Amino acid sequence: MDAVALWQRYQDWLYYHEGLEFYLDISRMRFDDEFVQSMQPGFEKAFKEMAELEGGAIANPDENRMVGHYWLRDPDLAPTPEIKQQIVKTLEKIEAFTQKVHSGEIKPPNAPKFTDIISIGIGGSALGPEFVAEALAPDFPPLAIHFIDNSDPAGIDSILNKLKDRLASTLVLVISKSGGTPEPRNGMIEVQTAYAAQNLNFPPQAVAITGDGSKLDQQAKSEGWLDTFPMEDWVGGRTSEMSAVGLVPAALQGIDIRAMLAGAKEMDAATRIPKLKENPAALLALSWYFAGNGKGEKDMVVLPYKDSLLLFSRYLQQLVMESLGKERDKDGNIVHQGIAVYGNKGSTDQHAYVQQLRDGVPNFFLTFIEVLRDRSGNSPEIEPSVTSGDYLSGFLQGTRQALYENHRDSITVTIGQVNPRMVGALIALYERAVGFYGILVNINAYHQPGVEAGKKAAATILDLQKQVLQVLQEEGTALSLTQLAQKAGASDQVEAIYKILRHLHANHRGVALEGNFAKPATLMVSAT
Amino acid sequence: MDAVALWQRYQDWLYYHEGLEFYLDISRMRFDDEFVQSMQPGFEKAFKEMAELEGGAIANPDENRMVGHYWLRDPDLAPTPEIKQQIVKTLEKIEAFTQKVHSGEIKPPNAPKFTDIISIGIGGSALGPEFVAEALAPDFPPLAIHFIDNSDPAGIDSILNKLKDRLASTLVLVISKSGGTPEPRNGMIEVQTAYAAQNLNFPPQAVAITGDGSKLDQQAKSEGWLDTFPMEDWVGGRTSEMSAVGLVPAALQGIDIRAMLAGAKEMDAATRIPKLKENPAALLALSWYFAGNGKGEKDMVVLPYKDSLLLFSRYLQQLVMESLGKERDKDGNIVHQGIAVYGNKGSTDQHAYVQQLRDGVPNFFLTFIEVLRDRSGNSPEIEPSVTSGDYLSGFLQGTRQALYENHRDSITVTIGQVNPRMVGALIALYERAVGFYGILVNINAYHQPGVEAGKKAAATILDLQKQVLQVLQEEGTALSLTQLAQKAGASDQVEAIYKILRHLHANHRGVALEGNFAKPATLMVSAT
Repeated sequence: MDAVALWQRYQDWLYYHEGLEFYLDISRMRFDDEFVQSMQPGFEKAFKEMAELEGGAIANPDENRMVGHYWLRDPDLAPTPEIKQQIVKTLEKIEAFTQKVHSGEIKPPNAPKFTDIISIGIGGSALGPEFVAEALAPDFPPLAIHFIDNSDPAGIDSILNKLKDRLASTLVLVISKSGGTPEPRNGMIEVQTAYAAQNLNFPPQAVAITGDGSKLDQQAKSEGWLDTFPMEDWVGGRTSEMSAVGLVPAALQGIDIRAMLAGAKEMDAATRIPKLKENPAALLALSWYFAGNGKGEKDMVVLPYKDSLLLFSRYLQQLVMESLGKERDKDGNIVHQGIAVYGNKGSTDQHAYVQQLRDGVPNFFLTFIEVLRDRSGNSPEIEPSVTSGDYLSGFLQGTRQALYENHRDSITVTIGQVNPRMVGALIALYERAVGFYGILVNINAYHQPGVEAGKKAAATILDLQKQVLQVLQEEGTALSLTQLAQKAGASDQVEAIYKILRHLHANHRGVALEGNFAKPATLMVSAT
Repeated sequence: MDAVALWQRYQDWLYYHEGLEFYLDISRMRFDDEFVQSMQPGFEKAFKEMAELEGGAIANPDENRMVGHYWLRDPDLAPTPEIKQQIVKTLEKIEAFTQKVHSGEIKPPNAPKFTDIISIGIGGSALGPEFVAEALAPDFPPLAIHFIDNSDPAGIDSILNKLKDRLASTLVLVISKSGGTPEPRNGMIEVQTAYAAQNLNFPPQAVAITGDGSKLDQQAKSEGWLDTFPMEDWVGGRTSEMSAVGLVPAALQGIDIRAMLAGAKEMDAATRIPKLKENPAALLALSWYFAGNGKGEKDMVVLPYKDSLLLFSRYLQQLVMESLGKERDKDGNIVHQGIAVYGNKGSTDQHAYVQQLRDGVPNFFLTFIEVLRDRSGNSPEIEPSVTSGDYLSGFLQGTRQALYENHRDSITVTIGQVNPRMVGALIALYERAVGFYGILVNINAYHQPGVEAGKKAAATILDLQKQVLQVLQEEGTALSLTQLAQKAGASDQVEAIYKILRHLHANHRGVALEGNFAKPATLMVSAT
C-alpha cells in the first residue's frame, strides 16, 4: 500500500474523541474488510454481554462475583442503591481524610505532619498505584510515596533505611483484600518491627485498605488503626485503581482523583457504544484479535513516548495477561489463551531492542502511545525551529514507518497530555478492550485460577521447611539429604529439601551444610 | 519425570562455581542427550571463534571492528600493549577522579562539593548504569544519580525541577560515543539551558564520556569541560558497562568497581572453558537454543527474586535482543533471528502475569534468578521459624515447580548475594552466552543495522517539518493539508505532514489547525 492509500486508510479508521482529545489509529494493522465482517457477530455478543455485566450480572461465575469497576466512575450505574451509596461515601471519605492529612489535622503522634507514605501491597494493589504515582505525582508531592511490593527482605530494608529519620512522620497503607496474601502481610510485619525498633506506635500511623470483615480489617479495628477504607467484593485486583486501592494513595500525593474518575467515566461512555467503528475499545480488541489470530500468537509491545508513562506497559502487562491468560474457555475446552505484553518507553527502547523488532523474529505487534503536548513551558531550540519534543515525535513517526515497511503492524494511541483525566481514560479504555477480547475468545477475564497453584506449591515448601527443621533439631548427628528426607517423611522431596537447606544455611538460620557443594548428594546437614 | 528422576537430572546438569558461589540449573529444560549430542559441533565452533574474538580478530566485520569488552576485565588479554595501557590508565584515572570528587578536591565553582549526578545517555549508555545503580548503589550514596535517557521534554523538566536547588552542585555526565546521537545531544542542550537560566557555568561541572576525537570530545576540550573519559572503538554500547561508560557513574556512587571487574574476570575465565558441561554460558546458550528451536520461537521471561535486580531483565532485553535480533545470517540468508526478553521481578510478577505463564499461551521459557542471602542483618519471624525471605524462597521454588508441571521449562541461576562482584559476573555470563548463541545461529551479534532505519526515517520527518514550516511562513493564507503537501514538494506525505502539524499545533509552535479533527482532510492550516 502506498503512502496515499495509507493516508486514506488512516482517515477511514481514525477514531477521535473530541472531549478527551483522544485519537486511536489502527490503520497500520493489516486486516481487510472481510476480516472485519467476520468479527461482527462476535462484537454484537460482546456489546450485549458487556451491558449485562454493567447491569450487575454475575460475570465471574467461578468466584460468584459481580464485576463492578465501571460503577466506580459512574455510581448511577450501580445495580443497587446500597452499592451506589457505598461508592459515593467512600469517595467522600477519601477526600475528607486526605484534606485532614494535608492540613495536619490528622497527624502522627510524634511529628507535626505526615511527610511520607509506605504503601504495602502486591499485584493489583501495587501496579496501579505505582503507575499513577509515576505518571501523575507532582515533583514535590505533599506526601512522598514508597512501595513495598514484594517479600524481599533486602528490598524492604532499603526502603526502611532511607526513611529511617522520617518513620515517625510516615503513613503506612496496608492494601490487601483478604489480609491473608503473604507478601503484604510479611511487609506489614517487617514495617511494624521497624516501628517497634524506634519505639513508635504503629496503629496511629497505619491505614488498612481491605475487604469488609477481612482478617486485616479485624486487626485494624481491634488495634485501633488510624482508619480503614473498603476493597469491594465486586472489584477485582487488576481493575481496582479507581477504588480506594488507587484513590487513597493518589489523593494523598495531591493527584486530582475526581479528574481521574471523570476521564474514566467519559471513556466508559465512549466504549459503551455498540458500534465497532465508534468504539475505541472494540477497535483495540479487533486489532489484538487480528494480530494474534485470536490465539495470542503475537506479543503486544507497548511503547509510550513519554517518560511519565514508563509503567503503563507494566500495568497493562498485568491487566492483559492475568485477564486473558487462561487454560480453558467458558465451555471447558483447553485453549491456552493470552497475549504476552512487554515494553518500557520510546524513544529509549529504540536503542534497546527496536533492532530486533525491525529485523528479527516477527512475533509481535506494537502499540505506540503518543502525547501531543511536550511540556508545560516553552522549549529551547536544539536546531533552528527544532526542539527535543520534535525529535521525540519524529522518532515515533519514523519508527512506526520503518517497522510498517518491514511488515510489522502497529496501533497508535494519541492523547493531548498526561493528566489525571487522561490516565483515567487510558485505564478505562484498556479495561474495556480486555473485557471485549475475553468475550471474543470466550474466556472468563475476571478470575485467576493459575495463581493459586504457585501459592499452594509455596505453602508446601514452607511446611516442608518446618518439618525438616524439626527433624534436624531432634537429631543429634549430621545426616545426608536422603536420610533427612526419609526421616521427614518426604523421601521424594530431596531436591526441595536441598534448596530449603541451602537457603537456611546461607542465612545462618541454625543449619550447617558440609561437603562438596558441586555435588549436592555428598552434603551432610546438621543443626547448629 | 518423577521427583526422584528430576533430582538425579538436577545433579547431572548442575553447574557450580565455588569461587563465585554461583549455581546454574538447567535441569528443568526438557532436552535429551540426543539434542546435546547434536549441538556439540556447534559448540566446538563457538569455543574456537570466541577464542579468536578474544585474540583481537575482527568479529564485527560490517563495522570493521574488534570486539574487546573481555579485555576490560583482564587487560593482559588485550591484543596490543597500547590497548592494555589504555585500559589500565583509564581505570586509574577513573579512580583518581572519583577520589578527588568524593574528597571535594574536585568541586563545582559555587558549592563545596558535588552532591548529585545527571547522567545523560541512551541505550548502552543508560541501561547498564541504571541497572548497576539500582542493584548496587548504597542507600545514601556520596553522589545521588539521576538519568536523562530519552528526548522527552517533560521527563527532562521533572528531573531538572527536582534538582533545581542543587544544580550548582550537580555533576553532569554526557555519555555518547559519537556525540551525534540526538537523544543525549538534546539532553545536553536542555541541561545547558537550565544551567544558563541559573547563571551557572556548565563546563566546570560537565564530564564527557565519548570516543576519542568525536564531536563531543572536541566540544568538551574546546569549552574546557571538567574532564573526559574514553569510549573505546572496540567496545559496543550494549557491552560497555565495564568501560568508562559504566565505571565512572558506578565509582562516583561509591560502588566498588574493582570488585565488579574482578567478578566479570572470574566469570570470563569460567566461560572460556571449551567444554559444554563445564561452561555456564554454553549451558545457557544450549538452553536458549533448545527452548526456541534455534529460531527464537519462545520468549525469555527473566524473573530475579530480589528487588535490587529489577532492571536486570531490562538490561538483558537490550543485550539479547539487540545482539540476536537480526534479519540476515552471516551468509546473507534471511533468517529473522532473535529472542524476545521481558520480566520484572519475583514474587511481584507472580501476581501480575504468572496466571498467563502457567495457564495461557506456552510461548516462553523462564529464567529464575535466586539470591541466597536474604539481607545483611537478621530477619524478624513472620511465623515461628519462618521469615519473609523464606516466603520469597518458597515462592520461587513453588512457581518453578507449578510451571514445570504444566510443561513450562525454566532455567535457575543462583547467586550468594547481590554485590559488585556478582553483578560483574552476571553481566559477563550473559555477554558470553549471547556471543555463543550468535555463533550457533550464525549471526553477527555485534552490529545493529536495523537501528539506523528508524533514525533515518526520523531525520526525514524533521526535514519535512522544516520544509512545511517554511512554506507556511511564506504563504499568507490557510491551506488544506493536501495543498500544503504539494507546495512543500511532498504530495505523498500528507499523513506525515498532518502528524507534524498536529504536534506543532498542540505546542503553540506557530501553527494553527482549524476544522474537524475527526476528519483530518477537512483541516486548514496557517502560520500564526
